[in-house]
Amino acid sequence: MAGSTLGQLFKISTFGESHGFGIGVIIDGCPANLPIDLEYIQSELDLRRPGQSKITTQRKESDTVQVLSGIFEGKSTGTPIALLIPNEDQRSKDYSHNKDVYRPSHADYTYDAKYGIRDYRGGGRSSARETAARVAAGAIAKLLLKQHGIAIFAHVSAVGTIEAPNLSDLSIDELYLQREENIVRCADPATAHQMIDCIDQIRKEGDTIGGKVSCIIRNCPAGLGEPVFDKLHAELGKAMLSINAVHGFEYGSGFSGSEMRGSEHNDIFIPDGTNPRTLTNFSGGIQGGISNGMEINFRVAFKPVATIMHNQQTINAAGEASEIKGKGRHDPCVVPRAVVIVEAMAALVLADQLLRNKNSRLD
Amino acid sequence: MAGSTLGQLFKISTFGESHGFGIGVIIDGCPANLPIDLEYIQSELDLRRPGQSKITTQRKESDTVQVLSGIFEGKSTGTPIALLIPNEDQRSKDYSHNKDVYRPSHADYTYDAKYGIRDYRGGGRSSARETAARVAAGAIAKLLLKQHGIAIFAHVSAVGTIEAPNLSDLSIDELYLQREENIVRCADPATAHQMIDCIDQIRKEGDTIGGKVSCIIRNCPAGLGEPVFDKLHAELGKAMLSINAVHGFEYGSGFSGSEMRGSEHNDIFIPDGTNPRTLTNFSGGIQGGISNGMEINFRVAFKPVATIMHNQQTINAAGEASEIKGKGRHDPCVVPRAVVIVEAMAALVLADQLLRNKNSRLD
Amino acid sequence: MAGSTLGQLFKISTFGESHGFGIGVIIDGCPANLPIDLEYIQSELDLRRPGQSKITTQRKESDTVQVLSGIFEGKSTGTPIALLIPNEDQRSKDYSHNKDVYRPSHADYTYDAKYGIRDYRGGGRSSARETAARVAAGAIAKLLLKQHGIAIFAHVSAVGTIEAPNLSDLSIDELYLQREENIVRCADPATAHQMIDCIDQIRKEGDTIGGKVSCIIRNCPAGLGEPVFDKLHAELGKAMLSINAVHGFEYGSGFSGSEMRGSEHNDIFIPDGTNPRTLTNFSGGIQGGISNGMEINFRVAFKPVATIMHNQQTINAAGEASEIKGKGRHDPCVVPRAVVIVEAMAALVLADQLLRNKNSRLD
Amino acid sequence: MAGSTLGQLFKISTFGESHGFGIGVIIDGCPANLPIDLEYIQSELDLRRPGQSKITTQRKESDTVQVLSGIFEGKSTGTPIALLIPNEDQRSKDYSHNKDVYRPSHADYTYDAKYGIRDYRGGGRSSARETAARVAAGAIAKLLLKQHGIAIFAHVSAVGTIEAPNLSDLSIDELYLQREENIVRCADPATAHQMIDCIDQIRKEGDTIGGKVSCIIRNCPAGLGEPVFDKLHAELGKAMLSINAVHGFEYGSGFSGSEMRGSEHNDIFIPDGTNPRTLTNFSGGIQGGISNGMEINFRVAFKPVATIMHNQQTINAAGEASEIKGKGRHDPCVVPRAVVIVEAMAALVLADQLLRNKNSRLD
Repeated sequence: MAGSTLGQLFKISTFGESHGFGIGVIIDGCPANLPIDLEYIQSELDLRRPGQSKITTQRKESDTVQVLSGIFEGKSTGTPIALLIPNEDQRSKDYSHNKDVYRPSHADYTYDAKYGIRDYRGGGRSSARETAARVAAGAIAKLLLKQHGIAIFAHVSAVGTIEAPNLSDLSIDELYLQREENIVRCADPATAHQMIDCIDQIRKEGDTIGGKVSCIIRNCPAGLGEPVFDKLHAELGKAMLSINAVHGFEYGSGFSGSEMRGSEHNDIFIPDGTNPRTLTNFSGGIQGGISNGMEINFRVAFKPVATIMHNQQTINAAGEASEIKGKGRHDPCVVPRAVVIVEAMAALVLADQLLRNKNSRLD
Repeated sequence: MAGSTLGQLFKISTFGESHGFGIGVIIDGCPANLPIDLEYIQSELDLRRPGQSKITTQRKESDTVQVLSGIFEGKSTGTPIALLIPNEDQRSKDYSHNKDVYRPSHADYTYDAKYGIRDYRGGGRSSARETAARVAAGAIAKLLLKQHGIAIFAHVSAVGTIEAPNLSDLSIDELYLQREENIVRCADPATAHQMIDCIDQIRKEGDTIGGKVSCIIRNCPAGLGEPVFDKLHAELGKAMLSINAVHGFEYGSGFSGSEMRGSEHNDIFIPDGTNPRTLTNFSGGIQGGISNGMEINFRVAFKPVATIMHNQQTINAAGEASEIKGKGRHDPCVVPRAVVIVEAMAALVLADQLLRNKNSRLD
Repeated sequence: MAGSTLGQLFKISTFGESHGFGIGVIIDGCPANLPIDLEYIQSELDLRRPGQSKITTQRKESDTVQVLSGIFEGKSTGTPIALLIPNEDQRSKDYSHNKDVYRPSHADYTYDAKYGIRDYRGGGRSSARETAARVAAGAIAKLLLKQHGIAIFAHVSAVGTIEAPNLSDLSIDELYLQREENIVRCADPATAHQMIDCIDQIRKEGDTIGGKVSCIIRNCPAGLGEPVFDKLHAELGKAMLSINAVHGFEYGSGFSGSEMRGSEHNDIFIPDGTNPRTLTNFSGGIQGGISNGMEINFRVAFKPVATIMHNQQTINAAGEASEIKGKGRHDPCVVPRAVVIVEAMAALVLADQLLRNKNSRLD
Repeated sequence: MAGSTLGQLFKISTFGESHGFGIGVIIDGCPANLPIDLEYIQSELDLRRPGQSKITTQRKESDTVQVLSGIFEGKSTGTPIALLIPNEDQRSKDYSHNKDVYRPSHADYTYDAKYGIRDYRGGGRSSARETAARVAAGAIAKLLLKQHGIAIFAHVSAVGTIEAPNLSDLSIDELYLQREENIVRCADPATAHQMIDCIDQIRKEGDTIGGKVSCIIRNCPAGLGEPVFDKLHAELGKAMLSINAVHGFEYGSGFSGSEMRGSEHNDIFIPDGTNPRTLTNFSGGIQGGISNGMEINFRVAFKPVATIMHNQQTINAAGEASEIKGKGRHDPCVVPRAVVIVEAMAALVLADQLLRNKNSRLD
């Protein structure tokens, strides 16, 4: 059934395939009168687009966004905002060899099993190209959040076993500047250097490597998130796990919290005027599924990209043994381009919860 | 806004507070003619209820389920199934000291911040007691899945730093038998022994400890899960993260997959009649968000229970420094009782996806 | 699939069958801190319950509402409000003759065709008894609307061909008083007298008769309703058509508007301070699907009750000719008891749109 | 909030304004492998487009549909189908006089009241041009229904007080042929002649006139529609009432049913092999909200178009008295172009219910 929609009040629906006409999104529920800065949307897309550096795919797409509806004289009108990112680099012939062969750890087999038909050109709808639409929509969500002073920042915190140190002393502006000074998008310069070397080496070997993206949200008011099923971290988790190649999500103390005792894990409240603080933040800014005003933080684990430059054994659509030859233009490591996708998904979840929270109590 | 509903076609809505009239659930969308075994539902609730053993809370609740609607002559009728679990042990006076004080790492403060009003008796709606309704609904989802031969099994795979070994050679029946032979619900007897000792010691110290639950799903047909936002693992992740105290979710290779190379992580397809297998299963049975017919597996991290038997500093509703005195009847470790909740949530997600998949293609 | 839910933000889900344990409803999304007057809810249910007068069914049900969750110290807490109305008069044996026979113009055949199973006791879920849950939920919606000064009034405007005159000069309070002075619930005393005589005569003949309910909404602010699919009148129409026995809905000029010219139908705007008025109100208070601040008005057509005291030809579950014998305790005319159901459904739609409108624009 | 989506499983979301880039729709949930005939979609759009005859608006739009996604090698792939109909005739200057003036019985005032901003060019999103997207989506729904043998037919049954006779003896093919032989789209040639004369006269007077569209659905299997809120006729009613200018909906006996007795209104079941028939069809093919296999029929009332060629008094955005001068290119009567919109909306509702019904019972 239908499954291309995210959010309940700030609701997005994406469409489009990797090698069809284009990729797009409808945002239904954006409040009217929000100033929409198209250059900002484009700048966000530029952080995701292919061909940025030597450690990303060399495929060329300008990913130019086009407004189809919902914006009038520079502002949202309250009606659906439709954005289209036309495909340019549609070398469909590159992919004809995929028609009857199932690439390992791709969605080829499962799409055929589910639908009995598959747009085999470049992964079709299962391609990470679909996330361009999310980034465009996420940029508008960020514009809405900025009106409320909420800031989101993500960076590459691990490539393979290379991990960045804790950077929580820096401001969002400092973090952003340091992140954009290097092509791997890690806010710690020394770690970034190692990561780039690692990815470059992996790329030369025709292989790929996994990594992690860490994200923080600052200045989020207390009260966002719905108890029970739609907890703030549950919605963030679903949004992150819906990004291609993500295999894990944790917030606050995360997996390491499962090894702790209550007496050390509990975040003691400190009196601090109208907005209480906590001494520690193992809760990751969320208690009972609802934001408590502290910094929200979470980590996302990405598996290595499945397309490698090696020949691999596999099967074809008839169930017979076959072989995939390594070729094409793909990312040796997906996390540098995933940073803005993680931010976009976080922004979409927060914008939705911000609107949902308007009705939590009588005025 | 409304947030107490999970699922789109096999849809549940829970209600109820810890110390009100009771806890309940409506299941809307269960197909008609499903035989409903009430004793089975009760036996599932018995795996979750308090007071089972020395390592769980000594609170007494029989958690007896009552059918309000939707079942006629032992079968579902296609109309909403409403189940009620009345509260029995409503010692509200135990909780009056919580009225104006925010317990650390509980939802007291965030509920007040969101709603401006809070049922302070035992956590009200934020109490894990709400999960009884999920277990009851999950039992009916399991009955539906059994009709399709799908089996779900979870057990305690870690308490603190004590980890169970891999048990993937055992059948579901063997795993279930071994799990139910001990009170910590770990399917490995030797590890279970250590875990019980650990929890018992923690309990005597008035402290609590975190842990992990691992879950597998066998005989799931290929094709379940919706691409893009409602990926099978994204729905599983959200469902697990919506359980009280969960701080992390990973499937397949999970967080460790982020340290791997594509050449080792890719799951090579093996010809095997109509249903292909993969040589390895780092994909955790899910590719592109859709089940591939292999075993689905995932892990869930639980933080330590916040209620400890120590005095703790905190603040009150006026923002002033206050103290919480350690008392009451709580779990030193939540995972033994959480095993059946994890299974229930997995069953609810799968039942929903099973129904959703009916319309993936023309007959 | 699931279909027992109405509303998106003020969302209700009903459950229960005519002769099972009871009828109930969950309201998910009611803002916190709304004072809940249980006596008011009960008084609304009393307007719908059977056995009120000689022109309604003589079946006896006290329809006593019971709160299961969501209300604490007299106020809504923001969590789901669950209400239960236990069944009392469960004479199941009265209905055993319906097990294998399809009553004409009832839902017996269609339920069997859809589900392959049917709770044949008194119509099961298809019984109008389900509307008791709607009235209880609607009473809470009315309490929310009262906080915003919005008032809803419905009355019986036609029984058969007996039509009430236009009463738009009266205040809501006057209309309510005049309506409750007679058992048919028509606000015009002279017409009420004729209607009662008509229904009493029909009843003596063992027959039934249709009728109409007219509803007005006053003091509704401009801006409620969503353009395109969820227009205010489209949501009202769906809500009314979902009431048992309703065969038609019209608002403003309605069907007679289809015979008019634009030059007479257009409602000319009149300058009037901050809130413009219109000279006429053929728009029925709604333009482009959005309220314009004028009085909203609509009419609902009810077919005659299908259960009559005559013997009728029909078929049984095997498709063979059979006969239904006229007996039981049923309403000769449903509209007097339907008045409060129409009001409840209107209140539920308006409450939902009121909450939805909170996010129409940036503050 | 978001309100541009219709349907739950066969789900459409429309976007676009009258004088922006274009009008479009995403269909999410169309089963895979459905052959998609683009010429058929275009032919349906041609029935709605302006400039068809002397009795429709003379505005020129080719309304050429463009596929953005979801169709591969002539078939649906199960992923979202996005369709775009670019605007051509964007004479924005024609509408600059509307910027600050509220046209009577249009949505100008209510959009401003709701959003505080309005795309004033030709009605923006409130323009009936939005229905082009519905017709395109409805064409795909019809292709799905054809696979199941379900046929839908609508025609103009009234213009002003000129009413067409009952034509139930004719086949769908005959009805279609007779309807398309005249420009008013009434299947009765004699009545069509009168209607055309009437509209032509009204047009010459610079006025407009209302009308009715009647619709039948044949070969619909028993079992479609969900009981309680999502009754088949409630969904049809909402869909019809969401069409611009619709003020009323009735099915089966409709408003006249409210004047009947139960003894004449009841539809007696007749034994007839596996699928029972009823002797009469006052139920309009729907009982208890579920189709019974008989012909479904309903009527839709359209008010006269608000734009007339006369000068009218009104107010401006400042609340001051103003005047609208009659000019522009508009329809004197909307029903000839609305016929295909009514069919499209009926097809969308039925396609959704067809998919929803797949899970009504265990296989």
